[in-house]
Amino acid sequence: MTLTYQAPLRDMRFVMDEWLDAASWWRDVPEWQDLDSHTAQQVLEQAARFVEERIAPLNASADLEGCHFDAGKVTTPAGFSKSYAEFVEAGWPTLSLDTAHGGQGLPQLLDVALQEMLAGANHAWLMSPGLTHGATACLQRYGSERVKRELLPKVASGEWLSTMCLTEPQAGSDVGLIRSRATAAPGTDGYFIDGSKIFISGGAHDLTENIVHLVLARLPDAPPGTKGLSLFVVPEWLAGDDAGRSRNGVHCEGIEKKMGLKGSPTCTMRFERAFGWLVGEAHRGLACLFVMMNAARLQVAMQGLGHAHTAWQRSRAYAQERAQMRAPSVPLDATVAPGQASPIAFHPAMRRILMELRAVVEGERAIGYWTAHWLDVGARHADAAEREQAAQLASLLTPIAKAFFTANGFDAASNALQVFGGYGYIHEYGIEQTLRDSRVSMLYEGTNEIQAIDLLVRKVLPDGSQALGLLLRHVRAEAQFCEESDPLVRSAGVKLRELVEAVERTTQAIKTRQAHDPETAYRVADDYLAMLGWMLLAFAWARTLRIAAPLHDSEAFYVEKRETGRFFFDYPLAAFAYRRSLVEAGCVATLPHV
Amino acid sequence: MTLTYQAPLRDMRFVMDEWLDAASWWRDVPEWQDLDSHTAQQVLEQAARFVEERIAPLNASADLEGCHFDAGKVTTPAGFSKSYAEFVEAGWPTLSLDTAHGGQGLPQLLDVALQEMLAGANHAWLMSPGLTHGATACLQRYGSERVKRELLPKVASGEWLSTMCLTEPQAGSDVGLIRSRATAAPGTDGYFIDGSKIFISGGAHDLTENIVHLVLARLPDAPPGTKGLSLFVVPEWLAGDDAGRSRNGVHCEGIEKKMGLKGSPTCTMRFERAFGWLVGEAHRGLACLFVMMNAARLQVAMQGLGHAHTAWQRSRAYAQERAQMRAPSVPLDATVAPGQASPIAFHPAMRRILMELRAVVEGERAIGYWTAHWLDVGARHADAAEREQAAQLASLLTPIAKAFFTANGFDAASNALQVFGGYGYIHEYGIEQTLRDSRVSMLYEGTNEIQAIDLLVRKVLPDGSQALGLLLRHVRAEAQFCEESDPLVRSAGVKLRELVEAVERTTQAIKTRQAHDPETAYRVADDYLAMLGWMLLAFAWARTLRIAAPLHDSEAFYVEKRETGRFFFDYPLAAFAYRRSLVEAGCVATLPHV
Repeated sequence: MTLTYQAPLRDMRFVMDEWLDAASWWRDVPEWQDLDSHTAQQVLEQAARFVEERIAPLNASADLEGCHFDAGKVTTPAGFSKSYAEFVEAGWPTLSLDTAHGGQGLPQLLDVALQEMLAGANHAWLMSPGLTHGATACLQRYGSERVKRELLPKVASGEWLSTMCLTEPQAGSDVGLIRSRATAAPGTDGYFIDGSKIFISGGAHDLTENIVHLVLARLPDAPPGTKGLSLFVVPEWLAGDDAGRSRNGVHCEGIEKKMGLKGSPTCTMRFERAFGWLVGEAHRGLACLFVMMNAARLQVAMQGLGHAHTAWQRSRAYAQERAQMRAPSVPLDATVAPGQASPIAFHPAMRRILMELRAVVEGERAIGYWTAHWLDVGARHADAAEREQAAQLASLLTPIAKAFFTANGFDAASNALQVFGGYGYIHEYGIEQTLRDSRVSMLYEGTNEIQAIDLLVRKVLPDGSQALGLLLRHVRAEAQFCEESDPLVRSAGVKLRELVEAVERTTQAIKTRQAHDPETAYRVADDYLAMLGWMLLAFAWARTLRIAAPLHDSEAFYVEKRETGRFFFDYPLAAFAYRRSLVEAGCVATLPHV
Repeated sequence: MTLTYQAPLRDMRFVMDEWLDAASWWRDVPEWQDLDSHTAQQVLEQAARFVEERIAPLNASADLEGCHFDAGKVTTPAGFSKSYAEFVEAGWPTLSLDTAHGGQGLPQLLDVALQEMLAGANHAWLMSPGLTHGATACLQRYGSERVKRELLPKVASGEWLSTMCLTEPQAGSDVGLIRSRATAAPGTDGYFIDGSKIFISGGAHDLTENIVHLVLARLPDAPPGTKGLSLFVVPEWLAGDDAGRSRNGVHCEGIEKKMGLKGSPTCTMRFERAFGWLVGEAHRGLACLFVMMNAARLQVAMQGLGHAHTAWQRSRAYAQERAQMRAPSVPLDATVAPGQASPIAFHPAMRRILMELRAVVEGERAIGYWTAHWLDVGARHADAAEREQAAQLASLLTPIAKAFFTANGFDAASNALQVFGGYGYIHEYGIEQTLRDSRVSMLYEGTNEIQAIDLLVRKVLPDGSQALGLLLRHVRAEAQFCEESDPLVRSAGVKLRELVEAVERTTQAIKTRQAHDPETAYRVADDYLAMLGWMLLAFAWARTLRIAAPLHDSEAFYVEKRETGRFFFDYPLAAFAYRRSLVEAGCVATLPHV
């Protein structure tokens, strides 16, 4: 069993060139005048080569070896240090960084595709550079001139890695309970930080010569709760007075023994008179950090997609190879000798699993890249109103993608494991690692329940919110296009229009009930998010069917798209009605206390 | 975090005494004249004490330590050997064994409750005695006089442990592909077995002085496929010619590195001129083995229930202790100071998860014990027709319980892990082990997909099958009782009747389509099984509501039963319609090949 990873370059190209037609709007962006589909594909091919050859081969061995902790020092698994240096050397951390800041200035769309590859190949490895973009964005926007001069360039290039230090034992989802303290460091422009943080990914490691921690703590005059949190940047090493440098009061006290992601050190950190600088305004640390967390959330969504893709790729390969029992039917082009067992890929129960994996993976890829596209539009469009609308769309899509993709990623791993039968439970077949690694993405960067509340309570229900209307206009427009096409596409369009109307009615039902029962939104938020997730996949597949329609009798790639799209509307989409029925239940029935 | 296990004795008593009213029919069984509810409860209390004090404390440490393999020898984790000796000493393996064979002759119902406790406390430990009952039943029925005399007593008492050696690298679900060979051993009453087996739980260990392997192999004149398999009993040690004993040609070549169940050695076995005796008729080995596998399947179902119960018990305790953010509402009797965070158990998203865990666990306990009850009736009833009907019901319920409970057990573990947030991903909180351990039950003793085919293709669709009709008569009768009760119970009864009618219509739709599209049943089997599973839980909760009805304003236990039952019909039961819609999809739409 060789555990190779192949980046889905053909499908990435389909989504970028045909589903999104990304290059057509790149031409309107001055910085991207010269960027065309061909160049973008070359970048992705290089990325794929690096990920397949240098990162993927370290996945299983890192899981077995894990990280080592000894007297405050953390060693990462064999090969991580070298491959990370190559990653920085090749400039991958700065792919979408502005050229003004020394980056390559490419669309975030390409970066998101890179994230998908890295996650699918080696999630633990990806954890190290996982916060580079967020920390860069945060320091760019809120860092002092000195911080921007002394720290930012090395953070942005990936030469120094970053962490986000929020969680304390008593303060997980509720950061308002954070107790770490900051006091002005006399005679300097900085502060001393004291406190303990847990679950800090990459809090200590041997990958870079310095680690830059972004730490939430309270100043002496801070009000309680989230409005008293300030953000500080605390490097592990400080530039010394002379040529040397001095160790800051940042200590790793241990690493966690986790279910998965064993190649990534999850550290308990102690800050003891650790010197740092304020980032942004005092007591406004959470706002500064949101810049960082938003960047991270779409990356986490890509982890869900990456794992689902790997699950699909591996389970399909296994199912085509493994023969057990006669299947009730075989493909037209297959020959199975009498009395011989069929590849399990022929068995209907396996086809159900495999086709659903495929439908979810390819649909999510379109939606994930669409979200990145809106981030690009929000950042680069010439028109301010377009930028604003794009930002609203991205802000609405991000929590959906984070929660929906990560839950699907874990389910995909478990379903793929089932295809492997008993072998799935054995380490050397790789899929059980996918299951274990994928589970964490439902928890961090805000649990999936927090994402659902963010979506419904903060983004959909407030009266001023226009984002949902914007989203539904896009989906409805697609439905209309589809309804003008051939019968298969037309029926997808009709279905898609029904979904939009269902979402509108159900959203209204929540608002009505919420007016006199303010717990309603909290009861239904998870199912509401999933409902929107399934609608988005239907949107993805309707457009895919429409694109594939004129080509349905030629290239296998498009024939398979049509088969998968048809399957999606026949089977997996039933989950939309299921989730909707649960939202409706929550608009009627209260929940007991436990 | 103390990882204690408390057996759900109060609920076990409720199911046995009130839901099943088991003691009332025990009185009609001559052997059980003296068995009453009080005695049964005493047995369960002793079992609970043993499991809680001696078995549960070894769960986390065994997961960390794992099993050791060295030069063919396997060592189990610390404490396993001693506690297993105590288990045998106390007579737990023979709880439901006939008194005629030296057992205690108690109902299988009590044994199933013991299985639930062991699985909830320490699944890996349970693996060792897991096949004792099956091997005993198999040898009792098919063993030669010599085998019954020399091996059976020690197998039945648990003094020697047993294995089931089916799987070979090329033969997993498809045992017809087995290649191991058996040849007559000249001048003896036995055979020599040669071949390799994989995934043999307890193939080698340090718990007992002998291990008795039941091995499927082919005799020289065997036809190909499953009709050429014969069953052999192959002890690790043979009684020697004189006072000594001799090592048989049975070798453990290694143990697997698995996702979970690390305390249980999963062995690769090599049989080389291993001496054994034929069990049952030549070429009829599979039929003999079915006796063993059927006993094992209900045990595996109990593993799903045990894990789900542990997931519920631990996540509730954590949710009541952990405080994060203000909940939108608090229970009437709770006081939360202004500005103080609420226990997360108050948050609606957590209540949804926790209540669903509870509803599934308590509903499954009723259905699992009901299945064991039919096994008892099938074995002990005075009337042959009653025995036959009970056996049919048990045979129908077993694959449902195996697949439905184990899938729910894994989902329960994952949902409970979500309650723990980031802590859920850390080993010391225990729940990630529950997730890892629980996953295997969906794979072994026939994957859940095989169970679904067994249910639909072999038990429901054949024209002569009456089992489904029998089952639906029981459910319909309950619906009728409920419809004569108070409004809450009545509405549950109405709903239950609708479910029965839906099952009848959907079953008919499958038959109709199947007549001209023989793949239909294979496409819909998994969802059909789940549909029946949800109907059974509705049956369990309808009866529970009816029992609790007259008591609804008194004891908290019954008040909570009513709340949970109401919740079940409001929320989780939506999964029935979802699964049904998928079955209906499968009756219309074909599946592409992958």
